[in-house]
Amino acid sequence: MAHIPLEEGVPGIRSLVLYRPETGEPLYELAQILLRGESPLTSAERELIATYVSYKNECQFCASSHAAAARYLFHDEAKTVDLVLDDYKNAPISDKLKALLTIAGKVQADARTVLPEDVLSAREFGANDRDIHDTVLIAATFCMFNRYVDGLAALTPTDPEVYAQMGERMGTLGYVSPKRK
Amino acid sequence: MAHIPLEEGVPGIRSLVLYRPETGEPLYELAQILLRGESPLTSAERELIATYVSYKNECQFCASSHAAAARYLFHDEAKTVDLVLDDYKNAPISDKLKALLTIAGKVQADARTVLPEDVLSAREFGANDRDIHDTVLIAATFCMFNRYVDGLAALTPTDPEVYAQMGERMGTLGYVSPKRK
Repeated sequence: MAHIPLEEGVPGIRSLVLYRPETGEPLYELAQILLRGESPLTSAERELIATYVSYKNECQFCASSHAAAARYLFHDEAKTVDLVLDDYKNAPISDKLKALLTIAGKVQADARTVLPEDVLSAREFGANDRDIHDTVLIAATFCMFNRYVDGLAALTPTDPEVYAQMGERMGTLGYVSPKRK
Repeated sequence: MAHIPLEEGVPGIRSLVLYRPETGEPLYELAQILLRGESPLTSAERELIATYVSYKNECQFCASSHAAAARYLFHDEAKTVDLVLDDYKNAPISDKLKALLTIAGKVQADARTVLPEDVLSAREFGANDRDIHDTVLIAATFCMFNRYVDGLAALTPTDPEVYAQMGERMGTLGYVSPKRK
């Protein structure tokens, strides 16, 4: 049960945004610009970074929903998302994305541990300033969303089909803040 | 040196918002609503929670600047902010605020460890739903800002006078996103 009264049956971040729309609006706007706005990274790649960070934070709601969005956007018959979560260094993704996931993982654990050599390594595989910026901000942002959802014990569905539907909505409509009925 | 080229001489989060105003706008809007908007917690109390979390994340820029804002807003001759950072359980603050800082500390470390008894304890000292919500979201949000600033190694001044001026600006003007010149 959630730590504060939230709208029944509404899962995760959506229930929190309905509870406090004043902060919910800029949070959804941030998610939309960061994950769907102009960037050298595709939306699928950005969802994958969000998923990886949420998985490392063990936030079941965010990890499951963004994994579903990433699977939808990757048309993921090759199970890229699952292979990345299992062992990204040996997953079928570019060396650039591997280097960016290393940076994202460091931001999740302790952002001060991101070293010039981590950034240089990403650059050697083709990352530019914006790739690096967006990776750090996505990782930081999901350290927030994960904590907001779990710190208030928001409803976390367990049915994979619920997340598959969520992922399709996130992949098509993006981040549109929910409104009170 | 920062990991990406940022405007020279501009410290911390401001340099990042100048680099990418599209994400900077909702970030500043969030900070303004969360720390200055309507809440059962005073702005001074909310700045104190932001400071405590930033201090625990060892983000020197955010901890120093929000400590300065909290000192300004508390008219802090009693050195409340420093006493809280040293040992909040024995600091001259309300039992309610101590219970909320316990929740904030858990959100910082691992949000899944916030237990119903932590929330009940805060309620017994007078906290309501919004106190609890705002505490969790402030703690989560600073886990983001701290990582954004340190993950890109943004400029972190060391002169306490620079932070005192920043704190006064934050305490009077609030969060107004910087514009490119």
